[in-house]
Amino acid sequence: MITYNAPIDDMIFLFEKLRDNKHYNEIKKYNEINSNLARDILGQAAKITENLILPLAKAGDDTPCVLENGVVRTPPGYKKVYEKFIQDGWTSLTCDPKYGGQGIPKTISIFFDEMLSSASLSFKLYSELSVGAYNCIFCHGSDSIKKKFLPKIVEGKWSGTMCLTEPICGTDLGLLKTKAIEQKDGTYKLSGQKIFITSGDHDLTENIIHLVLARTPDAPSGTKGISLFLVPKIQVKEDGSLGSKNKVSTGSIESKMGIKGSATCVLNFDESIGYMIGPKNKGLNSMFTMMNLERIVVGIQGLGISEIAYQNALIYAKERKQGKSNNNKTTNGADLIIDHVDIKRSLLNMKSIIEGERALSFWLAQQIEVSLYHSNNKIKQEATDLVSLMTPVVKSLFTEMGMEITSDAMQIFGGYGYTKDQGIEQLYRDNRITPIYEGINAVQSIDLVFRKLFISNGHVIEQYIESIRKEIKKNQSEIKIKPFAEKLNHYLEILVNFTNWIKTNIKEHKDNVSAACNDYLKVLGLVAIAFSWLKVLEVTYKELKNNKKFFENKIETANFFFNRVLPRIDAYYNSAVSGSKYIMNFKFD
Amino acid sequence: MITYNAPIDDMIFLFEKLRDNKHYNEIKKYNEINSNLARDILGQAAKITENLILPLAKAGDDTPCVLENGVVRTPPGYKKVYEKFIQDGWTSLTCDPKYGGQGIPKTISIFFDEMLSSASLSFKLYSELSVGAYNCIFCHGSDSIKKKFLPKIVEGKWSGTMCLTEPICGTDLGLLKTKAIEQKDGTYKLSGQKIFITSGDHDLTENIIHLVLARTPDAPSGTKGISLFLVPKIQVKEDGSLGSKNKVSTGSIESKMGIKGSATCVLNFDESIGYMIGPKNKGLNSMFTMMNLERIVVGIQGLGISEIAYQNALIYAKERKQGKSNNNKTTNGADLIIDHVDIKRSLLNMKSIIEGERALSFWLAQQIEVSLYHSNNKIKQEATDLVSLMTPVVKSLFTEMGMEITSDAMQIFGGYGYTKDQGIEQLYRDNRITPIYEGINAVQSIDLVFRKLFISNGHVIEQYIESIRKEIKKNQSEIKIKPFAEKLNHYLEILVNFTNWIKTNIKEHKDNVSAACNDYLKVLGLVAIAFSWLKVLEVTYKELKNNKKFFENKIETANFFFNRVLPRIDAYYNSAVSGSKYIMNFKFD
Repeated sequence: MITYNAPIDDMIFLFEKLRDNKHYNEIKKYNEINSNLARDILGQAAKITENLILPLAKAGDDTPCVLENGVVRTPPGYKKVYEKFIQDGWTSLTCDPKYGGQGIPKTISIFFDEMLSSASLSFKLYSELSVGAYNCIFCHGSDSIKKKFLPKIVEGKWSGTMCLTEPICGTDLGLLKTKAIEQKDGTYKLSGQKIFITSGDHDLTENIIHLVLARTPDAPSGTKGISLFLVPKIQVKEDGSLGSKNKVSTGSIESKMGIKGSATCVLNFDESIGYMIGPKNKGLNSMFTMMNLERIVVGIQGLGISEIAYQNALIYAKERKQGKSNNNKTTNGADLIIDHVDIKRSLLNMKSIIEGERALSFWLAQQIEVSLYHSNNKIKQEATDLVSLMTPVVKSLFTEMGMEITSDAMQIFGGYGYTKDQGIEQLYRDNRITPIYEGINAVQSIDLVFRKLFISNGHVIEQYIESIRKEIKKNQSEIKIKPFAEKLNHYLEILVNFTNWIKTNIKEHKDNVSAACNDYLKVLGLVAIAFSWLKVLEVTYKELKNNKKFFENKIETANFFFNRVLPRIDAYYNSAVSGSKYIMNFKFD
Repeated sequence: MITYNAPIDDMIFLFEKLRDNKHYNEIKKYNEINSNLARDILGQAAKITENLILPLAKAGDDTPCVLENGVVRTPPGYKKVYEKFIQDGWTSLTCDPKYGGQGIPKTISIFFDEMLSSASLSFKLYSELSVGAYNCIFCHGSDSIKKKFLPKIVEGKWSGTMCLTEPICGTDLGLLKTKAIEQKDGTYKLSGQKIFITSGDHDLTENIIHLVLARTPDAPSGTKGISLFLVPKIQVKEDGSLGSKNKVSTGSIESKMGIKGSATCVLNFDESIGYMIGPKNKGLNSMFTMMNLERIVVGIQGLGISEIAYQNALIYAKERKQGKSNNNKTTNGADLIIDHVDIKRSLLNMKSIIEGERALSFWLAQQIEVSLYHSNNKIKQEATDLVSLMTPVVKSLFTEMGMEITSDAMQIFGGYGYTKDQGIEQLYRDNRITPIYEGINAVQSIDLVFRKLFISNGHVIEQYIESIRKEIKKNQSEIKIKPFAEKLNHYLEILVNFTNWIKTNIKEHKDNVSAACNDYLKVLGLVAIAFSWLKVLEVTYKELKNNKKFFENKIETANFFFNRVLPRIDAYYNSAVSGSKYIMNFKFD
């Protein structure tokens, strides 16, 4: 049986000691969000995820969602826990107090996202898309739409979806066909089919608010002719009460490798009544408000599932005896497998990646808050650019690392890892969706290299590299941190060379760049995690005496990352710069 | 729907042009095993795997094995196809004509193993363990045992199992507890529980011959007190006919992530009658005859599943349109995804690994035959040593690459890849057992580094490295092969340094070596595949005119391997030589 203990110590450590972004600290409304409050919220979050949500993971895998008489039923237990979940206010955590929200910053909620992902990704998804819908309506909806829909979403009584994909298009939304015909009253009638709609239907909320991409008849082709519409499952009257059913039906639900507790629906819109959100033909832009934050959260899902996989592998390694370790002195019987060097190596690999990712995501949470709420527009824009740069990195790298870590955890369980009884294989299956949804990882890396690297003429990546350089310089005189700083410096130079190589090749050898995107994303991601580790080390050496064991372990974990994970960069870079000639020469026919 | 076309062209290419081991060619009994015969057998093999066995994969996943009233029932269709399978003589392919076998060498049967793995790993396992049992009895059984059991196994009327694992031990067989008490008539009564027994019970054959590891009451503890026993499910009379049921019962079958068509059983032996095979207390040695060849076949399973995943990803990439490629000239609509550089890159990555592995396994098949049948004992021993060295490499590397390739294939399918309809996710789940069973991969690498590297004082690895050096030298003057040879030379030197590093560290820093085993296995494996590619290239440049498209594609595929796969060695080596101090310092408590 899988168990889970929320890693609150590490979270609080980051919140207390690494809230070092001065622009974040300039955001007035967060002045009172202190460590005590964080500790309190995270304590409550740990309780509900460990005790109530964790059991839903197995329940959802054993008894997946079903579609019965046109209605989706969630797995046993989901409904009861969801009621408690909204009653305790978890859906309102980050929302604006104006609509009933608690206004808690991402520097806390990002940890809650991690905990939920650890406990049950399937259950999490029901509220996750609602947060996305909230953000999208909050940013682009008219006042009357906001007033009508947001309070119920905040309260958790209604949930939300993102309806993008159609049978012929996922990555390439320019191809989408769903039609929206304007009516005399200014509303629209939408017709078309959407697929892979997470939480497209379910029995947890009274109403479901679909955010749907569609084309008006006069719209230009491609991505420039897409508008965004709000289509409620049940129509909402002027006074906010529920009216008659809208014409949205669930065609089927997908049978999937994992996240079986999450309903992935085919939705048929048949002259469904909808309301345009944001400007006409700019629907993709509006949707991306939702998408970008959502992509970061998908990265956090990978982190959360990695954490629970690590915890359970560690527990098993401390119980299972097998073989003799190098330092065994007894002549009979077997040692705990944790005493074997290679098992330690594997566990430390997981831990060094997980804690590095957590530190990076905490840094990013601060940047997101600055990008949303700082009073100075220039500072806001700089933060927005940084968030844009790191979004595909966090989405792809954390989800791929999640596959590595859940896989390594299965290996520690041996044959038992492949059976359903232990539950570890479910983590591996559940996490396997994360490199796919919200934009497949390969497309994330294309987005990074072809778009994000060139935001403001490449200013963002230069600034980011410069900030790492500063940090390295600062630490090169600290005798204990120096070896880390120098190793990072070595790999930072590779990142610089790689970036220059891309800038050179993109003009005349675009194929070379296309073949190098995945590698570049990983190089940037590993450097970013190492940069976060360097900041952690700074605090660690200062505070060593105050919590000796915690910080000594931090040092060895960082050592592992710098010595054993960072060198992966050598392989990525050396293979990427070999170009693409032989790839383009190959005849696939 | 998954489709499959056996890659006969590549197989025949290897059989015709790379049967270059002169000692293999000295084995007289294979003089008449020529290309025509190979083509004929592989043609028939392709037919049965493509048409009859492939559909069993999905059938087994949709309707797994069940245990009903103490009897295991295989999925729909398995029984009928198995009857045809044995009727056509596939179980007798490699067996000795003395017992009804066809005496076909591994240089052909290894391709059949690959095809079966591609079509349905679950179905394959029912006959695979029988081959193992055959080999074990053939090498260690008495004449009367052989006469009694082998013909029926060869004919496929009876099947076999390997009963090693118990609840408290898998990797560490020294802990096993099953007891064997000698009876007055020289037989034994076995009592104990065995778990994870592949094909432990099923309804495909009249009888099942279990090969069971157990201890006699006077046996020393640990691995030195283990004997091997043959325990039939149904007792066999002197005249070879079936007698009464033996006391072997199936406690349960495992519910697993994949290979659901294969019955993985808990077997309870309760004073079951058995016969000792081979010398007392040397059971582990006898079992290893079976285990070692079996481990190589597990590697081939990874290769076979990789091949079918590649084929289906390629087909999908040629059908699905999404986005615009770099070289797109139209202004409207989307391109086939195969026109995108990154998709080409991903497919070529798969292909370069698959074809390299196939070439390596063909080379290994020749070595195995020499190790078994060469008339000169010295040559035989040298081949045995080489096979020993490469066994853990092929087992681990091919199965891990299988995970990479099935995962990358899923990514090409996008969201569809995660649904059950497409079938690609089943390949990923099915292959996931291969890094676990027959000795978990991490233990393979420990076996490689701590045992195999030191066979005859390290003579094997030195000889192997020397043979690669010779091949490189031979090709350095060939202007077209030179760039490949030099790249391999660069990485060969890293292998040499890594090997020396291990020899130095193993004396006083054993923990460093333990932490480096996995990396070493990968470095040796990648060099071995590149070595095989070099031999392929030699033929390729000679024969270029005779089959232009085939050989031109070979060159670009090799280019991919040398430029984009080999550089992974940099990461493995650079991380491994960082030692283990920080790992051992970390406090896991």
